[in-house]
Amino acid sequence: MIKIHTVSGYEEVGKNMTAVEYNGEVVIIDMGIRLDRVLIHEDVNIQQFPTKELQKLGAIPDDSSIRNKKVVAITFTHGHLDHIGAVAKLAPHYPDVPIYGTPYTIKLAKGEVKSEQYFEVKNPMYETEYGEIVQVSENLAIEFVQITHSIPQSAMVVVHTPEGAVVHTGDFKFDNNNPLGERPDYKRLKELGKEGVKVLIAESTRVAEPTKTPSEAVAQMLLEDFFLYEGMEADGLIATTFASHISRLQELIWIANKMGRQAVLVGRSLAKYTGIAKQLGLIKMKGAKAVRSPNAVRKVLKEVSQARENYLLIVTGHQGEPGAVLTRMANGELYDIGKRDTVVFSAGTIPNPLNRAQRYVLETKLKMKGVRMIKDLHVSGHASREDHRYLIRMLNPENIVPAHGEFRMLTHYAELAEEEGYLIGRDVFVSRNGYMVEIR
Amino acid sequence: MIKIHTVSGYEEVGKNMTAVEYNGEVVIIDMGIRLDRVLIHEDVNIQQFPTKELQKLGAIPDDSSIRNKKVVAITFTHGHLDHIGAVAKLAPHYPDVPIYGTPYTIKLAKGEVKSEQYFEVKNPMYETEYGEIVQVSENLAIEFVQITHSIPQSAMVVVHTPEGAVVHTGDFKFDNNNPLGERPDYKRLKELGKEGVKVLIAESTRVAEPTKTPSEAVAQMLLEDFFLYEGMEADGLIATTFASHISRLQELIWIANKMGRQAVLVGRSLAKYTGIAKQLGLIKMKGAKAVRSPNAVRKVLKEVSQARENYLLIVTGHQGEPGAVLTRMANGELYDIGKRDTVVFSAGTIPNPLNRAQRYVLETKLKMKGVRMIKDLHVSGHASREDHRYLIRMLNPENIVPAHGEFRMLTHYAELAEEEGYLIGRDVFVSRNGYMVEIR
Amino acid sequence: MIKIHTVSGYEEVGKNMTAVEYNGEVVIIDMGIRLDRVLIHEDVNIQQFPTKELQKLGAIPDDSSIRNKKVVAITFTHGHLDHIGAVAKLAPHYPDVPIYGTPYTIKLAKGEVKSEQYFEVKNPMYETEYGEIVQVSENLAIEFVQITHSIPQSAMVVVHTPEGAVVHTGDFKFDNNNPLGERPDYKRLKELGKEGVKVLIAESTRVAEPTKTPSEAVAQMLLEDFFLYEGMEADGLIATTFASHISRLQELIWIANKMGRQAVLVGRSLAKYTGIAKQLGLIKMKGAKAVRSPNAVRKVLKEVSQARENYLLIVTGHQGEPGAVLTRMANGELYDIGKRDTVVFSAGTIPNPLNRAQRYVLETKLKMKGVRMIKDLHVSGHASREDHRYLIRMLNPENIVPAHGEFRMLTHYAELAEEEGYLIGRDVFVSRNGYMVEIR
Amino acid sequence: MIKIHTVSGYEEVGKNMTAVEYNGEVVIIDMGIRLDRVLIHEDVNIQQFPTKELQKLGAIPDDSSIRNKKVVAITFTHGHLDHIGAVAKLAPHYPDVPIYGTPYTIKLAKGEVKSEQYFEVKNPMYETEYGEIVQVSENLAIEFVQITHSIPQSAMVVVHTPEGAVVHTGDFKFDNNNPLGERPDYKRLKELGKEGVKVLIAESTRVAEPTKTPSEAVAQMLLEDFFLYEGMEADGLIATTFASHISRLQELIWIANKMGRQAVLVGRSLAKYTGIAKQLGLIKMKGAKAVRSPNAVRKVLKEVSQARENYLLIVTGHQGEPGAVLTRMANGELYDIGKRDTVVFSAGTIPNPLNRAQRYVLETKLKMKGVRMIKDLHVSGHASREDHRYLIRMLNPENIVPAHGEFRMLTHYAELAEEEGYLIGRDVFVSRNGYMVEIR
Repeated sequence: MIKIHTVSGYEEVGKNMTAVEYNGEVVIIDMGIRLDRVLIHEDVNIQQFPTKELQKLGAIPDDSSIRNKKVVAITFTHGHLDHIGAVAKLAPHYPDVPIYGTPYTIKLAKGEVKSEQYFEVKNPMYETEYGEIVQVSENLAIEFVQITHSIPQSAMVVVHTPEGAVVHTGDFKFDNNNPLGERPDYKRLKELGKEGVKVLIAESTRVAEPTKTPSEAVAQMLLEDFFLYEGMEADGLIATTFASHISRLQELIWIANKMGRQAVLVGRSLAKYTGIAKQLGLIKMKGAKAVRSPNAVRKVLKEVSQARENYLLIVTGHQGEPGAVLTRMANGELYDIGKRDTVVFSAGTIPNPLNRAQRYVLETKLKMKGVRMIKDLHVSGHASREDHRYLIRMLNPENIVPAHGEFRMLTHYAELAEEEGYLIGRDVFVSRNGYMVEIR
Repeated sequence: MIKIHTVSGYEEVGKNMTAVEYNGEVVIIDMGIRLDRVLIHEDVNIQQFPTKELQKLGAIPDDSSIRNKKVVAITFTHGHLDHIGAVAKLAPHYPDVPIYGTPYTIKLAKGEVKSEQYFEVKNPMYETEYGEIVQVSENLAIEFVQITHSIPQSAMVVVHTPEGAVVHTGDFKFDNNNPLGERPDYKRLKELGKEGVKVLIAESTRVAEPTKTPSEAVAQMLLEDFFLYEGMEADGLIATTFASHISRLQELIWIANKMGRQAVLVGRSLAKYTGIAKQLGLIKMKGAKAVRSPNAVRKVLKEVSQARENYLLIVTGHQGEPGAVLTRMANGELYDIGKRDTVVFSAGTIPNPLNRAQRYVLETKLKMKGVRMIKDLHVSGHASREDHRYLIRMLNPENIVPAHGEFRMLTHYAELAEEEGYLIGRDVFVSRNGYMVEIR
Repeated sequence: MIKIHTVSGYEEVGKNMTAVEYNGEVVIIDMGIRLDRVLIHEDVNIQQFPTKELQKLGAIPDDSSIRNKKVVAITFTHGHLDHIGAVAKLAPHYPDVPIYGTPYTIKLAKGEVKSEQYFEVKNPMYETEYGEIVQVSENLAIEFVQITHSIPQSAMVVVHTPEGAVVHTGDFKFDNNNPLGERPDYKRLKELGKEGVKVLIAESTRVAEPTKTPSEAVAQMLLEDFFLYEGMEADGLIATTFASHISRLQELIWIANKMGRQAVLVGRSLAKYTGIAKQLGLIKMKGAKAVRSPNAVRKVLKEVSQARENYLLIVTGHQGEPGAVLTRMANGELYDIGKRDTVVFSAGTIPNPLNRAQRYVLETKLKMKGVRMIKDLHVSGHASREDHRYLIRMLNPENIVPAHGEFRMLTHYAELAEEEGYLIGRDVFVSRNGYMVEIR
Repeated sequence: MIKIHTVSGYEEVGKNMTAVEYNGEVVIIDMGIRLDRVLIHEDVNIQQFPTKELQKLGAIPDDSSIRNKKVVAITFTHGHLDHIGAVAKLAPHYPDVPIYGTPYTIKLAKGEVKSEQYFEVKNPMYETEYGEIVQVSENLAIEFVQITHSIPQSAMVVVHTPEGAVVHTGDFKFDNNNPLGERPDYKRLKELGKEGVKVLIAESTRVAEPTKTPSEAVAQMLLEDFFLYEGMEADGLIATTFASHISRLQELIWIANKMGRQAVLVGRSLAKYTGIAKQLGLIKMKGAKAVRSPNAVRKVLKEVSQARENYLLIVTGHQGEPGAVLTRMANGELYDIGKRDTVVFSAGTIPNPLNRAQRYVLETKLKMKGVRMIKDLHVSGHASREDHRYLIRMLNPENIVPAHGEFRMLTHYAELAEEEGYLIGRDVFVSRNGYMVEIR
């Protein structure tokens, strides 16, 4: 019998962790953190806090329901922090268990491990290619299927069991026109559907949107439509987006090249994510540079401020995060941002009251300085209702467990599943953190 | 002294009419209807209702404030009904005054005139090219400047006076990548800015959106991203959009061609708008056909229903309008719509409670029949706040009169103008239907 | 073993029907209709439509899952149409099974039966007092517990079984200050809690509101605060509210008396509900009269219109329903409503797109006539989250089945239950129309 | 000629200041602060910041447009900080000019002056009774008219000029049933209407609400309906509301008495406002005590926590303000708040992203501790649209200047005025901070 342990991420967007059990053996999928639970406690430093305390705060998964199981593999669907951010805290609970992920994901996970101050993570970590089927025990094998999301090398994780495949979608959308060339592996998904999928564990973040999520190519066009026409006449140009969104950053660099400006990426996390991407050949930094150290940042921003028309600044701080580059600019630090500058938000506002407040403070300050702002040149990385429906039709799973969302989102997914012929409680299961679904 | 008569459309979205007066001579811009004011009275047939009654209902402009003026020209910015729909009722108030518009607009206006049952419209109507400057009196000349919107051959109307130009934007967005090749004439706009713009009359529909409106190319991509991938595997495919949105229809026809399906446009208004467009070479109907008469519609839908995989139906009814093709399908007429069909809404829901209700009824009925629906594969045709800001910076007008919207929208525009250095009451004027702004 | 058949009303607000099964015997609770499902089909006349068709439209419960069971009693929680409106269509499925309810409820149900044109309903109908325990089979007894709602003599229905009580809340709020003197029977509820409640079936309409629902005394105060001060100086005064809301109508009559005006209730349904209420001594019509027939309505409205300051009109039409008195007034019929009149809406807008549209049309027309409108002098009749929590704490049920709402509302209730120590799938069950929950 | 200087509070809710000029002489109405503009700059301490800096931040009015005028009187409508909070910073600009207000207001203003660290305020301050007409120059007299709001002794300020009265509403609602017995002085308002009102300056905060604002008696009933029934069985009971809302606090104390519990008011600002109110006989503290010093707070909360059933705690922190008592409780300080406690929010959430975030953090922390929360047992202190309409009809002013709100609110008021026969730009004037309206 297969058991799906819905460890965490089934009551929130954040701190994802799921475990697939077959015959006493367990494969773990993702170990994420939930940053907003850290943010509401001003005195919490995640590096210095003990695991138990972080679990109590709800910042990382409470893995007690599976801690004493025989875990044979840990897998990561992709490199976002709500999927890998707790690796340094939780992997030590499963000593020596190997960790698998695509190369970009594993390199990011290694970064997390390295910056950990308290625990030593000794688990072996393997970069795994799409399509490779890795036998992790006599009964179980894992596989990464290529999918598109807002970070490179995202995957659906398949756990092959004697009773059929368990497919965990990770975070995804079906992007048929991604500018970097990544494509969903429809062929493999349809094969899996034919081979027989026992359980589909599906993210639910945007399942309530009654449409198909736009391609990343749309974001590229939104940016080009502004920068390559009206932006040509602008003085200071500052774009801000997610540091891990390599595709978006590549588009901005291409645009800077077309405009004859130099793209300058400013901020620690931008340097981190693009650095690893460059190493793997996932981004071309031609015509761009990334600066990271406080001194270099200060120096480059001084240069830029004296000849703004020659640069396209790409900075951190799209949510008004304290300490981020744009936040500091709005506070009057680093760069005399003002009437001559246009800030392009290539990101939405994360719908959490704390984020809204930070973003509001940021925008208010920028507006008081006379800065022009252009918002929402952005598309989401998450599947909408009709993408989810398509996946269900391709995989034709026997059972479905909605994941990755508040209860409200999981139930929206369940309603979609009912439209496709499933029935809540019979073959689609809305579970809660720390509980388990038994698949008959 | 220039006077701007804000005749109508300054308290609603609909029934637009503005008049520019210089030295006792008047140029009228637009004569539209407001359909929702007709809709709330079930017994009103617009063709059979006298002008005075329609004015009292608020369905067409009350032009009494300018009726006894010396009108020297009537101009139309574009061919939507909220801009030309009252021509047959109001043009007779100004006998013999010539009417000007771009060719597509004039041809549509002639259609309105032809279908009028009560009045005879004898005004001469002239198809005018972009850029042509037409002297309409000793002091006044008019000019149509190319702009992009959701109908072909939209224009900003310029009234040249001895005191400077008055620019009326009509409805517009800045679309730098329109698939049909239409482009905003930035060059001419910048020239006008240098020559001196005395007054800018600007539409305000979406000025509250803090971004740049996406290009029509984005709508094309949204459609392709669905149809050319997932849609390939579908059985019945039905798209619905605005009948006057020639660019969108062309994109759908191209897509049908790429899919190896025949595009079949069904519905009277689709036939009307594409017919005129074809005549002017604005749409290529290769691989498509439009059916109009009740018999032809019934026949073609029967054929399609027997081999759905060979067709892409394009139908009227995206707002659930009574009598439209999709509405009738949902009622079980014309075509056995059901589980095998996918309906793609390439249109938003017009935010009026009556429309919302009609659309709700439509969607509820389709859902009860098991039809799959994909919504919002669409982008707006109206400028957002940052497009408006760009226009102000190009034209640098001495005075601004926000138009085309509810009071709330006009005041949002006024706030934008204040950000750009204007002051309400000094050089930006929020006016009301039937009143007048004197430009010192 | 107890089985809860969640026949209907578990996917919508409307057409409620639940069945409690013990040892093969069944007690039915409520048989309601869903009016909005009739409204979207313009050609449906509920009286003339066959039961099967109405079920297919979703207008009345599909009772096929219990139709062949041994039903021993039919009970009604209260007299609203979404609880009793299908009695004439569905009771014939259970011939001779006795029907129970409080006197006001039974009298209304008899009215429904009388107006039925196609079926003959022969079931015996018994007026049952609060507190009376009626043995309906060897194993089962039923009981009505007094509760407060927006119609007189509402009840929670208790089905006593050998395994413990099953409590169905019906619609309720905890109103400790109802002006008519009705009070929740906290004593009996606490007793039931001590005796042991096996299952609580709870309505969920407003469980998402994080507060306690205001008392009806608040509505009374809102009305008095307007009418007895500012209203004293008014000319025409027109109030509109729910025809079955006897408490609200009584408050309006009292207010009219205090103002020295005559209360005139106009409209068929007002006459119906107050007529039965008067018969049972539930309303005092002193200083008021109700008119019903078309002729009487026309005559009285003519009188009122000639001396408006002497009357307080109370009319149907608060949702803009076609054919209601206020709707017709707004259309220019019956009474020359205009600038001299104030319309007080003592009702919210039912949040359904069709209602919103009707209400919008109503308000637009009234506004065009210069009528003053005062909205929202109203409080809800449904329990909020903290009322529900209090009920759970009083009854301390072993199991909970949320009812009476869309899936979203049921899941909100389930979340509340989890806060109180229950667990979804273990002892709180979110079910769907036509399915069944087995209580171990 | 009368000039209305719309100094501040015409683009926001906060930092109100208006000046009425006649023949070169000026009466100032209110000098408020805007706290959210301080909040977004973490490093701003309002006591230590120079006036110019606070003006630049938008925290206090920029009074440069009237600074060199001949000011003959400063008046305060009521004692809220957005009306008196800048007195210590701005009164020194007008040395020796006398300050007038009702006794409660003046006592609060003196408190503000006392806590000022940098400036010395030497202006004489006079406690003025309702109805008293104070001659402040040969031409000008002032008068305070009794009105109801959420703080005692609120007033409309009348400036009597040779051209007629200028009426400034301050903040108000028409409360005909205030539990403390305060009533709007309708008689005087109607007299003023007959004598002739030249200008009405009206607050606009809630003018968009299409109703009449409920009486404070409704809040009392909401509280009683919970506390005197369900609350009787509760263990720890904690209420939180506005410290200046003396009526609400009195209701809570009465309720505590009826429950046989002691009301304990905890927090510096609660002690301040109730202290002055007690001194003026505006509140009866029988059965209650207020604690203020950190030591006393700690001591009393320890006592309460050991016998919760004997107390009703009334605390600061309803918006989650940092440092407030409830905020600290949620952080685990002062009192072991938890499952045994119920927190009643007798206050809404102020709709500003920063407040929302603070309140969200507060609620999240309380929920994590298992605290039960009951929200929204509250009514607003601001007039709704129909109250405003009534005021216009009573005063029948020649001209109207909407005040106290964002542009959006002022324009909503202007639309109401148009419904009552005024016309924007002719006799109703939407102005901006720092500008002036000339009344012909």
